Amino acid sequence: MKPEVAVIMGSTSDWETMKHGCEVLEELGIGYEKKVVSAHRTPDYMFEYAETARERGIKVIIAGAGGAAHLPGMVAAKTIVPVIGVPVKSSTLNGLDSLLSIVQMPGGVPVATVAIGKAGATNAGLLAAQLLATHNEELANTLLNRREQIRQQVLESGDQLVL
Amino acid sequence: MKPEVAVIMGSTSDWETMKHGCEVLEELGIGYEKKVVSAHRTPDYMFEYAETARERGIKVIIAGAGGAAHLPGMVAAKTIVPVIGVPVKSSTLNGLDSLLSIVQMPGGVPVATVAIGKAGATNAGLLAAQLLATHNEELANTLLNRREQIRQQVLESGDQLVL
Amino acid sequence: MKPEVAVIMGSTSDWETMKHGCEVLEELGIGYEKKVVSAHRTPDYMFEYAETARERGIKVIIAGAGGAAHLPGMVAAKTIVPVIGVPVKSSTLNGLDSLLSIVQMPGGVPVATVAIGKAGATNAGLLAAQLLATHNEELANTLLNRREQIRQQVLESGDQLVL
Amino acid sequence: MKPEVAVIMGSTSDWETMKHGCEVLEELGIGYEKKVVSAHRTPDYMFEYAETARERGIKVIIAGAGGAAHLPGMVAAKTIVPVIGVPVKSSTLNGLDSLLSIVQMPGGVPVATVAIGKAGATNAGLLAAQLLATHNEELANTLLNRREQIRQQVLESGDQLVL
Amino acid sequence: MKPEVAVIMGSTSDWETMKHGCEVLEELGIGYEKKVVSAHRTPDYMFEYAETARERGIKVIIAGAGGAAHLPGMVAAKTIVPVIGVPVKSSTLNGLDSLLSIVQMPGGVPVATVAIGKAGATNAGLLAAQLLATHNEELANTLLNRREQIRQQVLESGDQLVL
Amino acid sequence: MKPEVAVIMGSTSDWETMKHGCEVLEELGIGYEKKVVSAHRTPDYMFEYAETARERGIKVIIAGAGGAAHLPGMVAAKTIVPVIGVPVKSSTLNGLDSLLSIVQMPGGVPVATVAIGKAGATNAGLLAAQLLATHNEELANTLLNRREQIRQQVLESGDQLVL
Amino acid sequence: MKPEVAVIMGSTSDWETMKHGCEVLEELGIGYEKKVVSAHRTPDYMFEYAETARERGIKVIIAGAGGAAHLPGMVAAKTIVPVIGVPVKSSTLNGLDSLLSIVQMPGGVPVATVAIGKAGATNAGLLAAQLLATHNEELANTLLNRREQIRQQVLESGDQLVL
Amino acid sequence: MKPEVAVIMGSTSDWETMKHGCEVLEELGIGYEKKVVSAHRTPDYMFEYAETARERGIKVIIAGAGGAAHLPGMVAAKTIVPVIGVPVKSSTLNGLDSLLSIVQMPGGVPVATVAIGKAGATNAGLLAAQLLATHNEELANTLLNRREQIRQQVLESGDQLVL
Repeated sequence: MKPEVAVIMGSTSDWETMKHGCEVLEELGIGYEKKVVSAHRTPDYMFEYAETARERGIKVIIAGAGGAAHLPGMVAAKTIVPVIGVPVKSSTLNGLDSLLSIVQMPGGVPVATVAIGKAGATNAGLLAAQLLATHNEELANTLLNRREQIRQQVLESGDQLVL
Repeated sequence: MKPEVAVIMGSTSDWETMKHGCEVLEELGIGYEKKVVSAHRTPDYMFEYAETARERGIKVIIAGAGGAAHLPGMVAAKTIVPVIGVPVKSSTLNGLDSLLSIVQMPGGVPVATVAIGKAGATNAGLLAAQLLATHNEELANTLLNRREQIRQQVLESGDQLVL
Repeated sequence: MKPEVAVIMGSTSDWETMKHGCEVLEELGIGYEKKVVSAHRTPDYMFEYAETARERGIKVIIAGAGGAAHLPGMVAAKTIVPVIGVPVKSSTLNGLDSLLSIVQMPGGVPVATVAIGKAGATNAGLLAAQLLATHNEELANTLLNRREQIRQQVLESGDQLVL
Repeated sequence: MKPEVAVIMGSTSDWETMKHGCEVLEELGIGYEKKVVSAHRTPDYMFEYAETARERGIKVIIAGAGGAAHLPGMVAAKTIVPVIGVPVKSSTLNGLDSLLSIVQMPGGVPVATVAIGKAGATNAGLLAAQLLATHNEELANTLLNRREQIRQQVLESGDQLVL
Repeated sequence: MKPEVAVIMGSTSDWETMKHGCEVLEELGIGYEKKVVSAHRTPDYMFEYAETARERGIKVIIAGAGGAAHLPGMVAAKTIVPVIGVPVKSSTLNGLDSLLSIVQMPGGVPVATVAIGKAGATNAGLLAAQLLATHNEELANTLLNRREQIRQQVLESGDQLVL
Repeated sequence: MKPEVAVIMGSTSDWETMKHGCEVLEELGIGYEKKVVSAHRTPDYMFEYAETARERGIKVIIAGAGGAAHLPGMVAAKTIVPVIGVPVKSSTLNGLDSLLSIVQMPGGVPVATVAIGKAGATNAGLLAAQLLATHNEELANTLLNRREQIRQQVLESGDQLVL
Repeated sequence: MKPEVAVIMGSTSDWETMKHGCEVLEELGIGYEKKVVSAHRTPDYMFEYAETARERGIKVIIAGAGGAAHLPGMVAAKTIVPVIGVPVKSSTLNGLDSLLSIVQMPGGVPVATVAIGKAGATNAGLLAAQLLATHNEELANTLLNRREQIRQQVLESGDQLVL
Repeated sequence: MKPEVAVIMGSTSDWETMKHGCEVLEELGIGYEKKVVSAHRTPDYMFEYAETARERGIKVIIAGAGGAAHLPGMVAAKTIVPVIGVPVKSSTLNGLDSLLSIVQMPGGVPVATVAIGKAGATNAGLLAAQLLATHNEELANTLLNRREQIRQQVLESGDQLVL
């Protein structure tokens, strides 16, 4: 399946977080590629990767990074493909540094930022799907069904509240 | 022009911020509608608005709010149309409360969060355009041209650095 | 016993925290119901639940949630029954996000916010009791006795300070 | 009108904030008294005031303070009358210190905390009203009508969004 | 030995921290008493304790508490005996709440605040000793010797830096 | 009058804050000296000043500084005279940096930290007085009288609360 | 004079801050160039600029940026010339976002970070000078003299402390 | 090998962090010395050490400290040798206190601050090397080769992303 979504991250240590986004894409049957692309250690490759993403058919880029997290913003500076930024939880400041480094972009170059950590990675996958679903009715229905199933699960979960 | 983007905000006091997103949409020739929709003061209208957005042809929703900013996340809970959240600067905590209330969504319901305040509102407009441009080559070219113009402006702006 | 207090939470994972509030209600002999009601995953159910709470005889609602914690505020938007919000400690930001998402409500829709985590859940139960006690002299006496017992325990606990 | 609500604050400088709570009580026709009671400068008076509040018919206490804001918590320690704490915006830390000093109460002595500053003071008045309305159908209807009016105002306010 | 220093804390759970202050006092041969005095659970006892401290010969009070830490400030409001406040590390916000609740006292009632946790408790003991040493030459010499010994230890500790 | 208290600060720009401490000392009739002593710009003078303070009869040192505020801690490292640290409000981080730089001292060298800004400077003066008053009954009585006067002022200030 | 130091900034709006660094370089007679180089708006130019800096004889790069401040880190990723990062005060979060985005670099690519705002820009100029002075005795002496002059000014400034 | 770099730290407990800087220096074949120098416990030794560093041939000083971390700034006040400050992660505030105490230096005395913890220590070693490499072509080449090797490792690391 030709990848429509690119999942990139600054380091293999981010995979523990970012894999949750890939799992969502797998579940929804969306083609994706996954790569380690480091803003600071492979800057030229990052630029080349971002620059060619659109012509390779990538519709959404999910970029995860921690600490002084420059990957999402720098990729966004090199392409008009929408970039979703995932702040990875950092060892010292719990990801607050990652979050601010990703979300506080200056006017002109947006990054669609999601929550810190696992929930953010999962939501990055879902957000990518929602973007694709604006022009894919079948995927839209899959997403609507997924929500309905989760709704049912929540409604039934009350039985687990045992004092 | 039929609106493809909906720009909503919790209060008229958010307009000073949110208008910067509308200005971008105007500039890019993207059809949009703008409304005050309050999560806390018009909850039923918010739900109805979110629920019907997709069938009315809305492709992206930009939602701005401040403080305990629940509008973006609650709209996102009621539609699979992508929601971009703009944290409006709050009078007490400078928008840190707005940011955390919008970005820290649980897994399952994503909100594409941008920067606090004016820069965020501008970028919300641009991000909406980038999403639409994934299926609109003309808009994509407009965005690429816009970036090129800004690039030129920056390169020429160095003359202003006078000690 | 007909429930006067409703204890709701966004997810079963919040139960570990919220059960401390239920334990207080049990101890004080106050009728309560407990449910999983998710702002983001069961939004319609949340609205229906909040809307009908008053007519069902609920006098106080205790709502716990973490991260972008919208449950307490959204329930408060749909009912004039007093809502006590419990910020559940989040995995990344220690509950600071939960706290700000709950407490920083705009003028018009109050949420009575308590401390992050276990202490907050316990106090939510006690606060609910204190509200009910404004019109229930027996409960008021129970609360006064409870305080007196705790006072005694504290006074006697000094013996445990052994170097 | 015999006061059912007590509005107290640590200093006359807090009045600029706290008056917004009194305005709500005035508007709703709820009897209240207002006083300067300082935890640190009039500690004995504070204790006496808190201790006698219940027998004087006070049903809710609204206490506002800034910085190391001990008034709400200490009053709460001396009475089982529900105490609503209003964090007043401080000159140095924007009220974050006030908020944490008020909301992070240990298990056993709850304070119902609202937002920092003016919005919080307004909501303190409304929350007091909602508590009283649990046993006052007329007041409940007044609150419901007030919400309906605000809802209408929001719905009509969209006309003010002019680019 | 008649106690010149009082070491009080809000709960037995603070002892793990506060004992480090007592150890310093033991080491320096300073008479002290240690007690659990809770601002919120034993308010009257706290007031009585603070009020009588001076006449009982107490020269310095060390008060430790966590979360919405009101003990040091309230004791300081009831006596002119110098009060040293120790912010105990809290389970949710790491003691930032404790620190702000203790240090941000309004003009008129000072609390001498030390670091969060163990280092703070140790320093509270030393600070108490330094206060007493302003009128006790022998104690001053003991403190000077202690510093000299620590200086020697540091100078010799470099050997432990082994790669 | 021979100075018993030394009021030092890192820069003349700190005087606007620190003068509030001197005003208290003037009011209470306590001899003091005031000096600019910069940890970073006059390090040797700082050390010499701290080292000789005790033999010159200084009983308490009040040291104010902002940002990376090293003055109080470094002075404390060079003398066993009690050092009170005043965090001056900084232009960027509102004094949070000043506060943490002063209060988070390692075990061994205490600094008695007070609130950020004016309230802190005032309290530094009062705390110095309270320390001296442990061996000066007349000063103790002055302090008690001062508190009584402030108490009266607060009790009478309620008349100013006019809606 | 051939530039040895490059002063770059993300936007002309940063000049108000960054000029303080240039003033120091002027004062010390150090050759420098100043340019607007935007990480997000002129990414290719930034890379080319960084890549060629060393061969053009640049010994130190001073890079200032605000918000999601990626310029210093990305320049550092493209050259082994030492990069000094100046966090410019941002309009919403006071430069805390700028600081964390610059300082929290991952292992492998260092940025020498200085204080937020004007003080940081001044110190960036001085730090650049200190680096050059490691191989320039004359500049070293100039720096030593500058410090001596400032020391004198501080020592004499005490006269300005007038109550 | 005569040391060109001095690695100092406030306590042996900082070694776990600081050794990562020494490992880099070892790897790059740069002569260095390592010592425990405590700002608060060995202030005179610190001053003497800093004052003589330059004449002993030290070109860069790396100073690590935690909490109220005064070592880097005070050493910088006593020498014009460039000082790199490493904020060691503190037990209570995760190193945010260390970071602000080190980075927020006043204009006049710069400290080149790196990230909190291990990454910062590693980068301190690399930054020292980059400074030396401005006048050492061989070291410059070693650094360029090191970056190239890391680049290769990153490019090859993508194979480890296995779902």
